[in-house]
Amino acid sequence: MTTTSLERTRAALQAIADAGAEGARIFTQVYADTALQAAAAADARAAAGICLGPLDGRIVSVKDLFDVAGETTTAGSKVRHTAAPAERDAVIVQRLRAAGAVIIGKTNMTEFAFSGIGINPHYGTPGNARDAARIPGGSSSGAGVAVARGMCEIAIGSDTGGSIRIPAALNGVTGFKPTQARVPREGAFPLSFSLDTVGPLSRSVLDCAQTDAVLAQQPWAPLVPRTVAGLRVAVPRGLLFTQTEDQVLAAFEQTLAGLRAAQVRTTDVNLDAWLGAPFQLQEQGTLIAAEAAHIHRELLAAGQADQLDALVLSRIRRGETITAAHYVGVQQARAQLQTQLDAALADFDLLALPTVPVVAPTIESLDDADTFHRTNMLVLRNPSVFNFYDLPAVSLPLPRAAGELPVGLMLVGKRHGDRELLSVADAVQTSLTA
Amino acid sequence: MTTTSLERTRAALQAIADAGAEGARIFTQVYADTALQAAAAADARAAAGICLGPLDGRIVSVKDLFDVAGETTTAGSKVRHTAAPAERDAVIVQRLRAAGAVIIGKTNMTEFAFSGIGINPHYGTPGNARDAARIPGGSSSGAGVAVARGMCEIAIGSDTGGSIRIPAALNGVTGFKPTQARVPREGAFPLSFSLDTVGPLSRSVLDCAQTDAVLAQQPWAPLVPRTVAGLRVAVPRGLLFTQTEDQVLAAFEQTLAGLRAAQVRTTDVNLDAWLGAPFQLQEQGTLIAAEAAHIHRELLAAGQADQLDALVLSRIRRGETITAAHYVGVQQARAQLQTQLDAALADFDLLALPTVPVVAPTIESLDDADTFHRTNMLVLRNPSVFNFYDLPAVSLPLPRAAGELPVGLMLVGKRHGDRELLSVADAVQTSLTA
Repeated sequence: MTTTSLERTRAALQAIADAGAEGARIFTQVYADTALQAAAAADARAAAGICLGPLDGRIVSVKDLFDVAGETTTAGSKVRHTAAPAERDAVIVQRLRAAGAVIIGKTNMTEFAFSGIGINPHYGTPGNARDAARIPGGSSSGAGVAVARGMCEIAIGSDTGGSIRIPAALNGVTGFKPTQARVPREGAFPLSFSLDTVGPLSRSVLDCAQTDAVLAQQPWAPLVPRTVAGLRVAVPRGLLFTQTEDQVLAAFEQTLAGLRAAQVRTTDVNLDAWLGAPFQLQEQGTLIAAEAAHIHRELLAAGQADQLDALVLSRIRRGETITAAHYVGVQQARAQLQTQLDAALADFDLLALPTVPVVAPTIESLDDADTFHRTNMLVLRNPSVFNFYDLPAVSLPLPRAAGELPVGLMLVGKRHGDRELLSVADAVQTSLTA
Repeated sequence: MTTTSLERTRAALQAIADAGAEGARIFTQVYADTALQAAAAADARAAAGICLGPLDGRIVSVKDLFDVAGETTTAGSKVRHTAAPAERDAVIVQRLRAAGAVIIGKTNMTEFAFSGIGINPHYGTPGNARDAARIPGGSSSGAGVAVARGMCEIAIGSDTGGSIRIPAALNGVTGFKPTQARVPREGAFPLSFSLDTVGPLSRSVLDCAQTDAVLAQQPWAPLVPRTVAGLRVAVPRGLLFTQTEDQVLAAFEQTLAGLRAAQVRTTDVNLDAWLGAPFQLQEQGTLIAAEAAHIHRELLAAGQADQLDALVLSRIRRGETITAAHYVGVQQARAQLQTQLDAALADFDLLALPTVPVVAPTIESLDDADTFHRTNMLVLRNPSVFNFYDLPAVSLPLPRAAGELPVGLMLVGKRHGDRELLSVADAVQTSLTA
């Protein structure tokens, strides 16, 4: 960093203030005083030669589903506006503070994190960082926009079906969803116990890796320097490449050609038996809907349902009729399929595919419920497969000409191979920007 | 061992043969030829100074829900009588063979392991080893009787709500249910994915510990020799001591007094908030029933339900109406309660209580369905709590006068503290028989 934490914190706060009403749609809370104090303390440490680790003095926002002591956790919902303040920080907030991070505020999100679009009728919809008439992507909508607009350096999001990777892709930043067990979820408002993960969005894979180390409470070890030459990349042509916009596919293929020129070995593979299974298995009811029906049972019973976004409510309601036998069957099939896919991927370092098959559509175009649901399913499609298989995945922005909308490249690693994936993704990102 | 494996195998086979029709109710299959060959091979190894470990040449039966290559796994059900033979041994059968064990046969069980009584209308009900007019306990009915009658030295059972510990208690042998993750279940016909465990019944804790090492694929390390002096034992007076027969309570209290005389520190504790929770939470539907409804869905859909024991079918049918939201709620509450109970037990080495509150009732007394269900719930009550909490537990026989029916003492350890529990239970067993 060429400037002090205090200078950078002031600049971030200024960016939020300059955005006016839009700033208040991106951040549900801004902690200016404590952020400035934390930044000054980090600078004082630095002057004394003390460093708490790679996030010391870095400017970090957290999605408004993580508890911050003394604050109400809205989870993007009006019904939680009057909920009791959190008694303590979420575990990941504790870890960030202990690592010297400057917590600048809480970012807006889809209600209960229950869509990949990012529209929120209660707290407002942040506009896409490149074109405010377009969707930000969700559910970590404010997180993606805040990083892209320089309102924080790092944003902590959650990802149940793509909620980190979709806003990363649509706003042109980098997002990382870890293997689920890697980062604790205590103090995070849940969407799905089976699928929720916690991870960062930022400007680079390196920033994501440094944040991941703090979130996972691992000592920071620099990524192993490597080149992309010799990397074995599988490209899962088929189902996850359908309905893909020409400009997305063109950006993807151009990148792939560039990687091949740098001695990456790409192989087209057909994995549709596995990549289609999450959808076929859950046609009669998803794990998310079943778990949401439990999580929100009191709210539904208390007659508060009419206060919810109708688009979110309809997805929760579908969970109420799912039988336990169906749910158990999906979980059992999932465990077996995971083992099979792990084996099918054994000879590759990575999977590579577009994060989202389209660039950000306009908010206006999603006005009717049918289009909303169809588009929501489409943006969630590719990312959600790797929540089902619990594989770590990075979305990084592809090179684009000026004026073009962002397109994300998704790189998928091995379960518990989070650090290895981050090393390789860092090499790919370096190669793309060289 | 003072005799050869071959001599002991012949004696075990003779005991089965001598029992006539009862032998065929205890064992659904006897593998005389391969057992004799395995025993001779073990003796030849011993003569050459080769030992494959603590089970080399020991005589072991497996419950008829474990796959044995080339044999039909009945799981105690008539509908599986014509199922295709297993293609390979269950993982635990592979481990037993690799450890030199002599697999003598497969033991009878409650249909689909779905009761603690041990009555089986399809393959017959083995009589209790002490009084054939009484129930054997289940679901590992044949396992408990076979060990008690010298038809094998070690029996491998499964325990979802007490199915190892109940027949151990009622037949006067020792049984061990491990922490679930300790022993793999591949190749075992499931009752409940959440609660099924695999473990041994035998004449002593030491035999159980040696078998556990093989099942868990750990190198055998002798139990740490210790005395009971200084052991901190919690006695959970309250709910799990209700409806307890005088003779069971008397045997338990006498043993407790003896242990106190040997410097064991016993403390009465009230843990009913936790020990009652599994029943309250599952009043509207149990994890077992929900999972059974999934496991047996094809059988139910195929119209084979009328071929099932009506007492088993009614329990499976109850699972069909459980909602996913209820199931998810039970699993979430379970995880939180487990953490709480672990903390509440931190200052103790063990819990001690009667395994089953009654001695084995007569088979005839359970003729009507109401009495059957009530008695079934009663014998399952104490053991099942520790499947819910996933704590390892041993049942060992209490000293009894000649002619008295067996009573089991249940010792419960810490999650993943299986070896520590076995060490302590071995010391208690030594102290009881001193």
